[in-house]
Amino acid sequence: MAAFTEFELIDKLLKPLAAKAPGAFGLTDDAAMLPELARGEAFVVTKDALSVGTHMLASDPPSDMARKSLRVNLSDLAAMGARPTGFFMALCLGQETEHAFLDAFISGLSDDVDELEVPLMGGDIIRQDGAFTVSITAFGAVQRDQVLRRNGARAGDSLWVSGTIGDGALGLKAARGEFLNLDETDREELTQRYRVPQPRMSLGAALAGVATACIDISDGLVADVGHICKASGVSCTIDAAAVPLSSAAQSALTLQPDEIKTIFTGGDDYELGFAIPPEHEDKMTEVADQAQTPVHRIGTFGIDAAVRVLDTQGKAISFTTTGYRHDRA
Amino acid sequence: MAAFTEFELIDKLLKPLAAKAPGAFGLTDDAAMLPELARGEAFVVTKDALSVGTHMLASDPPSDMARKSLRVNLSDLAAMGARPTGFFMALCLGQETEHAFLDAFISGLSDDVDELEVPLMGGDIIRQDGAFTVSITAFGAVQRDQVLRRNGARAGDSLWVSGTIGDGALGLKAARGEFLNLDETDREELTQRYRVPQPRMSLGAALAGVATACIDISDGLVADVGHICKASGVSCTIDAAAVPLSSAAQSALTLQPDEIKTIFTGGDDYELGFAIPPEHEDKMTEVADQAQTPVHRIGTFGIDAAVRVLDTQGKAISFTTTGYRHDRA
Repeated sequence: MAAFTEFELIDKLLKPLAAKAPGAFGLTDDAAMLPELARGEAFVVTKDALSVGTHMLASDPPSDMARKSLRVNLSDLAAMGARPTGFFMALCLGQETEHAFLDAFISGLSDDVDELEVPLMGGDIIRQDGAFTVSITAFGAVQRDQVLRRNGARAGDSLWVSGTIGDGALGLKAARGEFLNLDETDREELTQRYRVPQPRMSLGAALAGVATACIDISDGLVADVGHICKASGVSCTIDAAAVPLSSAAQSALTLQPDEIKTIFTGGDDYELGFAIPPEHEDKMTEVADQAQTPVHRIGTFGIDAAVRVLDTQGKAISFTTTGYRHDRA
Repeated sequence: MAAFTEFELIDKLLKPLAAKAPGAFGLTDDAAMLPELARGEAFVVTKDALSVGTHMLASDPPSDMARKSLRVNLSDLAAMGARPTGFFMALCLGQETEHAFLDAFISGLSDDVDELEVPLMGGDIIRQDGAFTVSITAFGAVQRDQVLRRNGARAGDSLWVSGTIGDGALGLKAARGEFLNLDETDREELTQRYRVPQPRMSLGAALAGVATACIDISDGLVADVGHICKASGVSCTIDAAAVPLSSAAQSALTLQPDEIKTIFTGGDDYELGFAIPPEHEDKMTEVADQAQTPVHRIGTFGIDAAVRVLDTQGKAISFTTTGYRHDRA
């Protein structure tokens, strides 16, 4: 492999991604300066690391790896009701990471910097003994008194989700070569949902001041609703039949009914799950229209127990696990 | 190894490190909220990743690895003139990372959170295929119009450094088992300078509005002064005899005169190098006293060429490399 240094990579590949952020100082200084906020706004910050072999498949296109790495962080900001303002990135190159991989990775990242209008502001490039890992720290801005937390849901609030649930986890299976009897278009659609999630930024911003709690569904629907319940001290009953599924997920479920477990606990959806108080339910059509994002009411928060998922007969569906964890030792 | 999950690690080990940051929300939410700034202040942000085998030796105590990881980031903030306000951390655990290692790592980090008064605000824990890597993103606050950059040095300004130069790179060699004929106390002192650098936070804050350019010396004195020169469009002549050395470094140099190269180009010092305009030179005694940090004038910026180091006869010392790079492919 041709030798390349941190300085060359920054100059040639990364500097253009920072062009629209004056505070990035062209990636030349020891640190960057965040932009000024509007009155009453605060910065929210999230940091997620993704590694090939753990969160991404070695067979995923590098450009999709880059977009996913950025998007899962933007999804966290959306869950706090914040609009993204910039991000920092540490690239941890494995001993085997090739220049062509990096070119493709940064090309994908560049597409998202343009499409999602969020500039790179700084970071680091290192070599490590092992796989390729990327750590991103993303910043967003939100009115300080309207930030969405997990701890505000109350008994009587309704549970809503954006988009469709289960595609990410089914897509991971499809990317690994499962669902070979599924229609090619469906398999491709699920795979792409796994590889390039769609952070719900407009919806998150529209929910600030409307929802009482919010989370992004990354660990799995049941686990993440459980996080809201634990933080808020409430329970939740989910109506399985109300959970929105894509047509590709419906096809997969028809072929393999047991995949209902993957859909409810598989994670990697990066949709928003949120609590709406009764007095704001009327607003939801308007909010969804404003954010151009489909939303569905799928359950109710209560006081009696933890998270339950009921089938059409009102019988609880049991799961051996509530969500996927990348970090299980 | 006993199984442990991200949630357990966060609850048991990391939550106490976030206790003094209200915006960390007890590490329960998708993102954290940065504190409010004083009028005229801005956030500066830096992100450095360190990996065992690249930036740290597997034989370094895990508690020192943690402190170094935080401190090199705080050093970047100091170089911008900022006081630290908090940090985020992604722990990328290798397949072999043991619970005892993590306990020791987080114990060292906890000591620094207390000693340096900078709270943990959030982050991520993942498993990766390979070595242990930690990525830290640190935040500081500085008056927006007093931020220290690399690009403000002018011909006629003088070059200064804090502390002593070369100990970090000599310490790495000592930690690797070199300098066996050196006094044990000296070897230990150098090793410790490599393992636990001292970020010059008080000095950095005191230099805001005084220095015309500043950098932290991490790549090596010659390389980092070169970064200032390149950004500022100036040259610099360093008087080798004026460069402050610790007594341990002097002893090492007496035994092995060729180590002069390590001292000038080895890096890992995490001292500040900065440019002072003629009208502010008188202030330097006061600034050093205020920051309780020794500083020395070691050179002069000019217009004629790049960085030159002159010996006591005024002859240029030549180096085959200007600094160390962790990322050379």
